[in-house]
Amino acid sequence: MIDKLIQKIKDTGAPIVVGLDPVLGHIPESVQKKAFDSHGQTLEGAAAAIREFNKEIVDHIYDLVPAIKPQIAMYEQYGLPGLAAFKWTVDYCHEKGLIVIGDVKRGDIGSTSASYALAHLGQVKVGDASFTPFGEDFATVNPYLGSDGVKPFTDVCKEEGKGIFVLVKTSNPSSGELQDLTLENGKKIYEVMGELVDKWGSECMGTMGYSNVGAVVGATYPEMGKVLRDVMPSAFILVPGYGAQGGKGADLVHFFDKDGLGAIVNSSRGIIAAWKNSEKGPEGYGEASRDAVLAMKEDIAQALGKDL
Amino acid sequence: MIDKLIQKIKDTGAPIVVGLDPVLGHIPESVQKKAFDSHGQTLEGAAAAIREFNKEIVDHIYDLVPAIKPQIAMYEQYGLPGLAAFKWTVDYCHEKGLIVIGDVKRGDIGSTSASYALAHLGQVKVGDASFTPFGEDFATVNPYLGSDGVKPFTDVCKEEGKGIFVLVKTSNPSSGELQDLTLENGKKIYEVMGELVDKWGSECMGTMGYSNVGAVVGATYPEMGKVLRDVMPSAFILVPGYGAQGGKGADLVHFFDKDGLGAIVNSSRGIIAAWKNSEKGPEGYGEASRDAVLAMKEDIAQALGKDL
Repeated sequence: MIDKLIQKIKDTGAPIVVGLDPVLGHIPESVQKKAFDSHGQTLEGAAAAIREFNKEIVDHIYDLVPAIKPQIAMYEQYGLPGLAAFKWTVDYCHEKGLIVIGDVKRGDIGSTSASYALAHLGQVKVGDASFTPFGEDFATVNPYLGSDGVKPFTDVCKEEGKGIFVLVKTSNPSSGELQDLTLENGKKIYEVMGELVDKWGSECMGTMGYSNVGAVVGATYPEMGKVLRDVMPSAFILVPGYGAQGGKGADLVHFFDKDGLGAIVNSSRGIIAAWKNSEKGPEGYGEASRDAVLAMKEDIAQALGKDL
Repeated sequence: MIDKLIQKIKDTGAPIVVGLDPVLGHIPESVQKKAFDSHGQTLEGAAAAIREFNKEIVDHIYDLVPAIKPQIAMYEQYGLPGLAAFKWTVDYCHEKGLIVIGDVKRGDIGSTSASYALAHLGQVKVGDASFTPFGEDFATVNPYLGSDGVKPFTDVCKEEGKGIFVLVKTSNPSSGELQDLTLENGKKIYEVMGELVDKWGSECMGTMGYSNVGAVVGATYPEMGKVLRDVMPSAFILVPGYGAQGGKGADLVHFFDKDGLGAIVNSSRGIIAAWKNSEKGPEGYGEASRDAVLAMKEDIAQALGKDL
C-alpha cells in the first residue's frame, strides 16, 4: 500500500492528506438543518449531516490529493450511527479513488491487536464466510504495549497489502511528558520508538524505498522530525499538526527526503473548516476546502523548493 | 464511580471483573448455529451469537461479581453489528446491576480524546438534545500522548461521575520494550507513568480512599505491582493477565492494600471459555462460567488470606 501512496503523491504532486474530522461545529448550519429536518436532532441526524458534509468536501478535493484520514473518534462520539458514517466515508472515498488512512490509534496485547487489525485492515471470518468490517488502507497504531501489540497489524498488512503508521512523536503540547524522556543511555524515548519502527518496518518493505510500517511525527516538533528522518530512513512519516495546530510549511522540510518524498502532511480543520475564513462562506464550503488544499500544496512546494 | 465499585466489591466479596471478550471460538457451536440459522453466516449472525452468549454468561454471574469488562476490539472486528452487540452488552449488564468497564484503550490529542471521552463515558450534543453513545462506567485509557490526552477523560469523569484506568504496566510479554526502560534519573518508565496517574488522580478522589483515576498493571508482573502499589497509593489497580495469560492468585497479593482492597482482577477466557475444560460441557457453558468465578474467588481469598 505504501507504493500506491507514493505513486499517488507523485501523480497529484501533493504530499497532503485531508483529515475528515467532521465535528458538528465545522459543518455549516444549513447542512445540519437539512439533516435534522429529515432525521431529527438525533445521532442519526448528526450522522446524516456528516455524510453530506464529507461527500461535498471529498467531491471538491478527490482529484487534488492522494489520501484522506478520517479520525474515528469524531464518528465514535455519535455512537453506532456515527460509526456507520465512518464506514460510509471509507467506502465513498474508495469509490473516488482515494487512499484511506484510518486514524484509529488502536493498540493492545497481541490477541486483541489481532482483532483490531482485522477490524480496520483485514477480513473477519464468520463460519465459512469472510467480511471486511471497516476496510481502511492504513491505520494508525499506538505502540505503548511494544512489539506484540504491533505485530498483529504488520501480519495483516502483509496478508492484505495494507500499511500502518505507528505513533512516535505526537503533535500535542504534552507529548513530551513520556516521549521526550531521556534514557540512561542518553537516548530519547521517541528515538527508541523510531528504532523500533525501523525494525518492524524492515520486514514490510515496499518496492520504492519505503516500508508499509510508517510513523507519526508532529509538524509541531520539526527538530525531532529531523532526528527521526535519520533514525528510521525507510519509514514514511505521517505529519499531523500542520495549520490549526501551529505547524507551518517551513517546519516540514526535515520530514522529507532529498526527492521531496518520505512524508505526507495532514490538515484537518484548516481544510474542512476553511469556509469559516473564506469569502465563499458556508454556502461554498466545498470550494473553500479546495482553495485551502491548493494553498497548502503551494506552501509545501515553496518550503521544499520544488514541485514533486 | 470508584466508590460504587468498592462498595460492590465489599458486597460481593469478589475483587473480580469478568472479561466479556466473546470471539466466536469461545462460543459453543450450538449457539453459533442458532444465530446463523436466523441471520446467516454474516456479521449480524456473529453479533447475534455474541448477544446470546453474553446474556447466558451474565445471567449466571451477575450476582457474584461487581463488574464486567467487555474488550471492544472483539466486537469492533465484527463491524457495525459487532459494535451494536457491544452497546447491547453494556446496556444489559446495567440492567443486571453490574458496573461496566469499557476496555477501549483510547487516547489521542486533547480535542480527539474529548470525543472518545464523550463516546464512552459521557453524553454528546446534537442540536439541543443529548445522547449517551456507549455509556460505560469506566474506560481504559492509553497514556502515550501525555496529560492533554488524559485530561479530557478526567474532565468527563468529574462531570458524569465516571472513572478511568490508565495503562501503566501491561500484562503482555513485550510490554517491557517501552514500559521497563530506565531513565537517566534511574526511574523506570512504568514508575513515571504511575507518578502521573497519582497526579491525575489527586483531582478525582472518591470518598473511600481511592481515586476515579485508576491504573492497569498486569498480574504477570507481580514485583512491579508491588512497586506501583506504593508509587500510586490512591489508584485502584485493574489487573489483567490472571488465568489464561499466566497470572496466579499468589501473584496478586502485592496489588492489594492491607484491607484486601485497592485492586480488581480480570479474567476473560478463564471464565467465559471455562466450558471447554468443564464436565458441564458446551451445553452448560453458563454454569461452567459460574463455577470458574467461584473458583477464582476462592483462589484470590486464599492468596489474600482473608474474606473481604
